[in-house]
Amino acid sequence: MNTFGHRFRFTTFGESHGKALGCIVDGVPAGIKIDEEFIQNEMDRRKPGKNKYATARKEGDVVEILSGVFEGFTTGTSIAMVIFNENQKSKDYSNIKDLFRPGHADFTYFNKYGIRDYRGGGRSSARETAARVAAGAIAKLMLKELGVKIQSGICEIDGISAEEFDFSNVAGSEIFALDKNVEQAQKDAIMAAKNKHNSVGGVALINVSNVPVGLGEPLYHKLDSQIANAMVSINAVKAIEIGDGILASKVKGYDNNDQIRANGFKSNHSGGMLGGISNGEDINVKVYFKATPSIFIKQETIDIYNHEVDCELKGRHDPCVAVRGSVVAESMMSLVLADMVLLNMSSKIENVKKVYN
Amino acid sequence: MNTFGHRFRFTTFGESHGKALGCIVDGVPAGIKIDEEFIQNEMDRRKPGKNKYATARKEGDVVEILSGVFEGFTTGTSIAMVIFNENQKSKDYSNIKDLFRPGHADFTYFNKYGIRDYRGGGRSSARETAARVAAGAIAKLMLKELGVKIQSGICEIDGISAEEFDFSNVAGSEIFALDKNVEQAQKDAIMAAKNKHNSVGGVALINVSNVPVGLGEPLYHKLDSQIANAMVSINAVKAIEIGDGILASKVKGYDNNDQIRANGFKSNHSGGMLGGISNGEDINVKVYFKATPSIFIKQETIDIYNHEVDCELKGRHDPCVAVRGSVVAESMMSLVLADMVLLNMSSKIENVKKVYN
Amino acid sequence: MNTFGHRFRFTTFGESHGKALGCIVDGVPAGIKIDEEFIQNEMDRRKPGKNKYATARKEGDVVEILSGVFEGFTTGTSIAMVIFNENQKSKDYSNIKDLFRPGHADFTYFNKYGIRDYRGGGRSSARETAARVAAGAIAKLMLKELGVKIQSGICEIDGISAEEFDFSNVAGSEIFALDKNVEQAQKDAIMAAKNKHNSVGGVALINVSNVPVGLGEPLYHKLDSQIANAMVSINAVKAIEIGDGILASKVKGYDNNDQIRANGFKSNHSGGMLGGISNGEDINVKVYFKATPSIFIKQETIDIYNHEVDCELKGRHDPCVAVRGSVVAESMMSLVLADMVLLNMSSKIENVKKVYN
Amino acid sequence: MNTFGHRFRFTTFGESHGKALGCIVDGVPAGIKIDEEFIQNEMDRRKPGKNKYATARKEGDVVEILSGVFEGFTTGTSIAMVIFNENQKSKDYSNIKDLFRPGHADFTYFNKYGIRDYRGGGRSSARETAARVAAGAIAKLMLKELGVKIQSGICEIDGISAEEFDFSNVAGSEIFALDKNVEQAQKDAIMAAKNKHNSVGGVALINVSNVPVGLGEPLYHKLDSQIANAMVSINAVKAIEIGDGILASKVKGYDNNDQIRANGFKSNHSGGMLGGISNGEDINVKVYFKATPSIFIKQETIDIYNHEVDCELKGRHDPCVAVRGSVVAESMMSLVLADMVLLNMSSKIENVKKVYN
Repeated sequence: MNTFGHRFRFTTFGESHGKALGCIVDGVPAGIKIDEEFIQNEMDRRKPGKNKYATARKEGDVVEILSGVFEGFTTGTSIAMVIFNENQKSKDYSNIKDLFRPGHADFTYFNKYGIRDYRGGGRSSARETAARVAAGAIAKLMLKELGVKIQSGICEIDGISAEEFDFSNVAGSEIFALDKNVEQAQKDAIMAAKNKHNSVGGVALINVSNVPVGLGEPLYHKLDSQIANAMVSINAVKAIEIGDGILASKVKGYDNNDQIRANGFKSNHSGGMLGGISNGEDINVKVYFKATPSIFIKQETIDIYNHEVDCELKGRHDPCVAVRGSVVAESMMSLVLADMVLLNMSSKIENVKKVYN
Repeated sequence: MNTFGHRFRFTTFGESHGKALGCIVDGVPAGIKIDEEFIQNEMDRRKPGKNKYATARKEGDVVEILSGVFEGFTTGTSIAMVIFNENQKSKDYSNIKDLFRPGHADFTYFNKYGIRDYRGGGRSSARETAARVAAGAIAKLMLKELGVKIQSGICEIDGISAEEFDFSNVAGSEIFALDKNVEQAQKDAIMAAKNKHNSVGGVALINVSNVPVGLGEPLYHKLDSQIANAMVSINAVKAIEIGDGILASKVKGYDNNDQIRANGFKSNHSGGMLGGISNGEDINVKVYFKATPSIFIKQETIDIYNHEVDCELKGRHDPCVAVRGSVVAESMMSLVLADMVLLNMSSKIENVKKVYN
Repeated sequence: MNTFGHRFRFTTFGESHGKALGCIVDGVPAGIKIDEEFIQNEMDRRKPGKNKYATARKEGDVVEILSGVFEGFTTGTSIAMVIFNENQKSKDYSNIKDLFRPGHADFTYFNKYGIRDYRGGGRSSARETAARVAAGAIAKLMLKELGVKIQSGICEIDGISAEEFDFSNVAGSEIFALDKNVEQAQKDAIMAAKNKHNSVGGVALINVSNVPVGLGEPLYHKLDSQIANAMVSINAVKAIEIGDGILASKVKGYDNNDQIRANGFKSNHSGGMLGGISNGEDINVKVYFKATPSIFIKQETIDIYNHEVDCELKGRHDPCVAVRGSVVAESMMSLVLADMVLLNMSSKIENVKKVYN
Repeated sequence: MNTFGHRFRFTTFGESHGKALGCIVDGVPAGIKIDEEFIQNEMDRRKPGKNKYATARKEGDVVEILSGVFEGFTTGTSIAMVIFNENQKSKDYSNIKDLFRPGHADFTYFNKYGIRDYRGGGRSSARETAARVAAGAIAKLMLKELGVKIQSGICEIDGISAEEFDFSNVAGSEIFALDKNVEQAQKDAIMAAKNKHNSVGGVALINVSNVPVGLGEPLYHKLDSQIANAMVSINAVKAIEIGDGILASKVKGYDNNDQIRANGFKSNHSGGMLGGISNGEDINVKVYFKATPSIFIKQETIDIYNHEVDCELKGRHDPCVAVRGSVVAESMMSLVLADMVLLNMSSKIENVKKVYN
């Protein structure tokens, strides 16, 4: 259950404060050029400790490839990648050793497994998402061979919404903002909450262009359902919208349908898919992250003996997980698409013959 | 890819206007009493043709169990259920034989498979969801043995929102309305759109109570990610919210965290799960259905030869798919939970010993 | 767990004396011509009641396709096939209602599931293999498009071995004998055992020619391991050999290695695969069926109350299950290969590009 | 496809001469005591370089656990284990860089993936089996909690068969011989072949005692079919027998059936399973390993340009892979059983209730 995907699939391991975390990526076609610099660059986009809007925890997040790549190309065998933890301070957590942090998985993990791994949430920590980004980078390298382009950015922080979605603004923005005009207000909102030992939520927009038509396996591995699965599996995600999303439930059918002309669709309310299969238009998905549960205000909770206690967190946390989360969402999108690309290959006997003749 | 679930899993088959549709449900524990009347009653809740708010297509939707049940109890072997189509009028579709209906999967299925099954959308039709309800009824019978209760209702139609969520109102309402006070307005909105040959969208709320703590398999088979997967796999669903959903991205961390006391959580913003694992509180999920794409207004489209043509639909369609869709969403929730209940059994060695000693 | 295969996969249902049995075949590429006569012909090869060497139970084994085929071609959606039981005489089994037949699964099913479905073994009956043959026929129709040829025959009955493997003899032989010279002796052995109310075992040889190089997914879905899995899943199979099989463990390395020349391998000790991947040579597999456990000699057993009782079977049984079993083995081989053909499509990025460009 | 198992599953990575190999074991129940010394001891049983009957390659095969274990107990999360390669001499392989070694997977990997990883077979090398033994050790630790005991030994080398199966002889024997009386003859056969630059095959016997009744998921995840799958996935395995195996196809039904008394089965021809489900008797499986393909006699082959060349191997190889292979077979058996134990938990609703009440 630590595996995602079918033909292009990955399995992750590792805890927030363990020795290492990483993944095995399986089903990667042979012959893909592996650009290690690109992979590391992807890691760097997500890594903590870069500025005041993120956690102060410092991690180099250096990925080491242990297998599956030979002389710079994938070999078709499983690709293992490992990231050793550098800055694990278990003592940060000594004061919360036995208690359940509100909004965190401490309570549920303890009840499910009967074990309390108090070191920063253990496996349930968002630190695990580093492994997703490493796997996602491999997916991106494959998709690049087909010209598929995936990008992401922040469209809302603390209720302050972008009105323009300018992906070219993202790389230069400390909070990956899509809209330059609201960026400062969004930053201020984060700092205001942080200064009050509180936190804020936010929304990421993921966009994919140059998508082949036909991706998505009906009926229970549809493109949209797998995107939903992927996004909601990310820590702190509480809602998602495909294309116009909620708006599509408020307008009339005529206004929501995308009519079609010989040169393409006249609109893209659907967000690039019909019946769970890509239609060639841009895929647009919004991912809603709750406000970071790690806050430094006193809260009421219980400990593992069911005694009522106060919870006063220390440590280093992101005041807004949506920012770094957007990179993870982009990685998950890449992983879903890579899987779909391979799954779709056998949709017609004509394709089967193309490969075998 | 027509299979959903892991330990409790089902596989469906059938097209809108084919001979039959149905499913095989696999992994059902032996010894569950099968109440066929209950199963049929579930089917009847979803079946078409009951009133003016639904499609006029008449189907008895009678389920026949072909295997897996002996003398009234499940045997542990695969349960096949079949529903023969009674009212398939392929001629309804003769005028759209070669064209792609806007908002439908016609375009993407044709491009993916190279085949045009023009009979009412073929496999992509929401008629397939009858099989999900049959499978869901088996799941419910299993969950009933553990006391888990699942219910659903409509909380919004055409933007008209319920303010009270009264599940006792649902069974008596032709549109499964949760709020008696807005029910008539919601009905009127449906009829107004229908009379203009248009359609409306809506929102279903799914609620689960008496949930065991510990359901959900991290990290890629979390309870919330599988619910998202399940819900978005339903025809016309474009967004979902878990618990407070989008609101959780707009408030501060302190306000969103559910603090804990010895006798339980002080609030339930999370919708009954933490870290993707159930915490024992009620599960609440909102499912957003787009306005029915089948409308009777002239639309622009192309045919399979890429010629631009007008699309003028005839036939019988739901003016608001959310209504009957809510029953399907409830079934999918049951199926996810049944799977999670079985998967969670091996979380601790202590449980393994309980079974083997 | 009633599902076999990954990309080309099938799920079966049905009990020996239930209403019907059948399967859903999923992942079949669209555009394959479905020859229903061919499918029925495959069924007829396996069906009971044809001659004195088989069980007297009469079944038409007529397959009805419920979905997934439109205007004679596969549509890419799930294909359901159903075979209604005609000749179920539950009363045949009334004298063994509560007891465990030696050599049968009665004891283990009862202990595993806590349920006694006494009607001819219920789900554990070899009658289920009819569904495999139906699924296998679809696989064969796909493989035919690539020119892959699969055949089978009986090479040993009751220890009497074929010395020649002449597949052209099989269709005309009531016992599917590969060697005309020993056919009569093999038939006599069956009748001799039958007349003494006893039974015999036998061995089937499965041969595949014109196999594409590259089939088999290392390391845990190798071609040979999946063939082993498939064959041993057939009722009564107790051993298998790939290529030279046991002999390969008795000779020296030099004698077992297949040396290679520019125009191919100099020998085929390996049975057509190296490292679990097809090498283009013929695949040869031997499948060993135990003597039918259903015999009419008095045996010692217990009943469900753990009382010691005598078991005296009545009813209709194959005196040698290997004969009809060989057709099932051939079907399973087809199903494994169809799956491997689809899985192998994504082995190289070059293939991915062939499909998408 | 580098994953084996369903609920208790593992995924491996690594090449013979890469940086490292290892695995992720997933689905392990929380609360199992992890004895690292035991794990290392299992590794040592398989590791190369211990005596003249094995390859001279020296590897410490030290396992490092990276995740999933906290304070000596499993936590229910994925367990990653890594073994760094110490003695990889790629130059050993420089003379065979471009040619296909007869009996090896070089030819098929090159054709399937279009890549030549010439370093000792890369992923196809039996070195990968070290990761299986590490995973198998975790499985054994779980099975130990239920009292299940798994053992293995060599019953035949170069056609010289054991007559007694004395598992107490194995640990003290350099070739893991089951029969002291033929051990020296078996050793001599290995050395005789080795001195002639040739190799021999052999047979391992795997035995499991104290097996719970009910393991095995019909119909396509039967205990025997999964054992077959597991065993044939091991490098060099060409045949397997369950229980009496081939003999069961040569005797009469009456002689092969295991009759039943109140205190158990009167015989165990079946090898501990009926209908693919364990019956509580000892599981016995024979695994046939071909003679090592790596020999030092000149052989005919081709290179990647299809030129005919001579193959003259150098390097370090096992003269009989069955010896160390028997430990791998034992590990695979442990992994199959661990999976089956977890899968079987949900066979009856009664068991489900045991866990939830």
